[in-house]
Amino acid sequence: MNVLLCGQLNAADWARWRDALQRQLPAVTCCDEAEARQQPERIEAAVVANPAPGSLQGYPQLRFIQSLWAGVDRLLADATIPSQVPIARMVDPAMTAAMAQSALWATLALHRGFFAYARRQAQGRWQQHAQRRADEVPVLVLGYGEMGRTAAQAIAAQGYPVRAWRRREGDLQDGAVQVSGGAQALWTLLPRSAIVINLLPLSPDTRGLLDARLLAALPPKAGLANLARGAHVVDADLLRALDTGHLRHAVLDVFHEEPLPPDHRYWTHPRVTVLPHAAALTDERSAVEVVVRNLARVMRGEGAEYLVGREVGY
Amino acid sequence: MNVLLCGQLNAADWARWRDALQRQLPAVTCCDEAEARQQPERIEAAVVANPAPGSLQGYPQLRFIQSLWAGVDRLLADATIPSQVPIARMVDPAMTAAMAQSALWATLALHRGFFAYARRQAQGRWQQHAQRRADEVPVLVLGYGEMGRTAAQAIAAQGYPVRAWRRREGDLQDGAVQVSGGAQALWTLLPRSAIVINLLPLSPDTRGLLDARLLAALPPKAGLANLARGAHVVDADLLRALDTGHLRHAVLDVFHEEPLPPDHRYWTHPRVTVLPHAAALTDERSAVEVVVRNLARVMRGEGAEYLVGREVGY
Repeated sequence: MNVLLCGQLNAADWARWRDALQRQLPAVTCCDEAEARQQPERIEAAVVANPAPGSLQGYPQLRFIQSLWAGVDRLLADATIPSQVPIARMVDPAMTAAMAQSALWATLALHRGFFAYARRQAQGRWQQHAQRRADEVPVLVLGYGEMGRTAAQAIAAQGYPVRAWRRREGDLQDGAVQVSGGAQALWTLLPRSAIVINLLPLSPDTRGLLDARLLAALPPKAGLANLARGAHVVDADLLRALDTGHLRHAVLDVFHEEPLPPDHRYWTHPRVTVLPHAAALTDERSAVEVVVRNLARVMRGEGAEYLVGREVGY
Repeated sequence: MNVLLCGQLNAADWARWRDALQRQLPAVTCCDEAEARQQPERIEAAVVANPAPGSLQGYPQLRFIQSLWAGVDRLLADATIPSQVPIARMVDPAMTAAMAQSALWATLALHRGFFAYARRQAQGRWQQHAQRRADEVPVLVLGYGEMGRTAAQAIAAQGYPVRAWRRREGDLQDGAVQVSGGAQALWTLLPRSAIVINLLPLSPDTRGLLDARLLAALPPKAGLANLARGAHVVDADLLRALDTGHLRHAVLDVFHEEPLPPDHRYWTHPRVTVLPHAAALTDERSAVEVVVRNLARVMRGEGAEYLVGREVGY
């Protein structure tokens, strides 16, 4: 089977992917875009890392797309990809663990005010602030897929009262985490959430969800970590909530435009922590296993794992 | 029983302590230093927060000292305190939990390079760095008292391989944490520790333990969090290890002189995070319960809990 490799990895990374896939799947031949364009009718599958729109056009035999990224919103928005071609998200256990670490780190830092201490260090100020117990700091996790669930459970294990919210209707008690579903439930959860961790998929439903209305529904001095997609946030609304002091601090790993433009206010805002889309990187070692397993299934004529539900948008 | 309250709390804090103790123990009368000095022979117990040396001199009936701080090194170094008067450390579950949070936060931040990302934000630089799995980052916890144990278990629960070290001889497998004892064991643990969390008590044995020799025994690019006492560290040696890049970053909550003097290099060092002795504050609500229980035991003629072993120095 001929497999196209394309998207935002550098040449050295793609060379390692090619070697790993061909070594573990002798029936696979990997092609870069230049090679693939010479015999486009031979390409049956694609392994992609956030490819530019249109990159997957013109491959009449393409019957499977494996994303190396967990978020597939850009692929789903690419109208040039035939809708019958199944797309699999990356669900890499090492990446999920990394996301849970980032969410837990952000929760601990927001709760204990370690970002405020960093500001005071920059000013040479020695000043303690009050310390709440974890059980006094309710945390709301938005999204309850693999990453939301793993993060919520890790945070709950540290003694925080954790509620999770997902768009799908229906409530669920999952260990220590209480999961609520449906648009209405969100508005009852927000006023009692001191910290919000966003791990939602990006879809037409969730685009711009973190706007002035949502932020205003939080109690004063809440903290936010957006580890999902920049387009979940209305930047002007978030900046206003930070400037007025309604929101205490925001940890932002994702942005409307990435890299974050040099003149963006987030870079220098004292209440914003900017991360370069690094909350959870794909771990090549475990991700290779995921891709090998899926390509092998496709070659055997079986369905791949972690296929995207196009109707729900993730 | 007349109880002296003295040390480094402000007047409002002491007023709350006085109210709480007298409300819960009607047989207790609390005195500040001025009141106590009028009838020193009536003082039988003292509740202290890092009191100045000599503060407990001249109370002939003093038979119990309760510290509100976990560390009692300064009390033990005060030669004016009669050696037969028992001293109890503060072992407050909320404070222990806070310390475990700080240790876990520091571990996650050192492992994932969140301090490096903060430096890059200050420079307006968008740049990811490599991401290791938690199981590739061995953590060494120095000290295995209440705080060391709770911190080590919380870190191990996140998937880090955790070893702990204590001065006392004897090895122990405590859940996922392997505890080694004795001076010799330390030197075999250091070369395989990517992150070191210091939670040792300060005693003549451990003063200056974190010196050039110890730091040189760590692998290159290790991270350090000192959450115990400033005097555990030889500052010049630590600064040199940071300047040469041998040590990647240090989180310092405690210092030889506190507040940290304004001109100290730690304040502005790019590889140092300065906290104002805030990794674990005494939580007044749960600490009151601890003190009430101990004073009641002393009044009944029973021994107090968490007494300091003067021979071992903590």
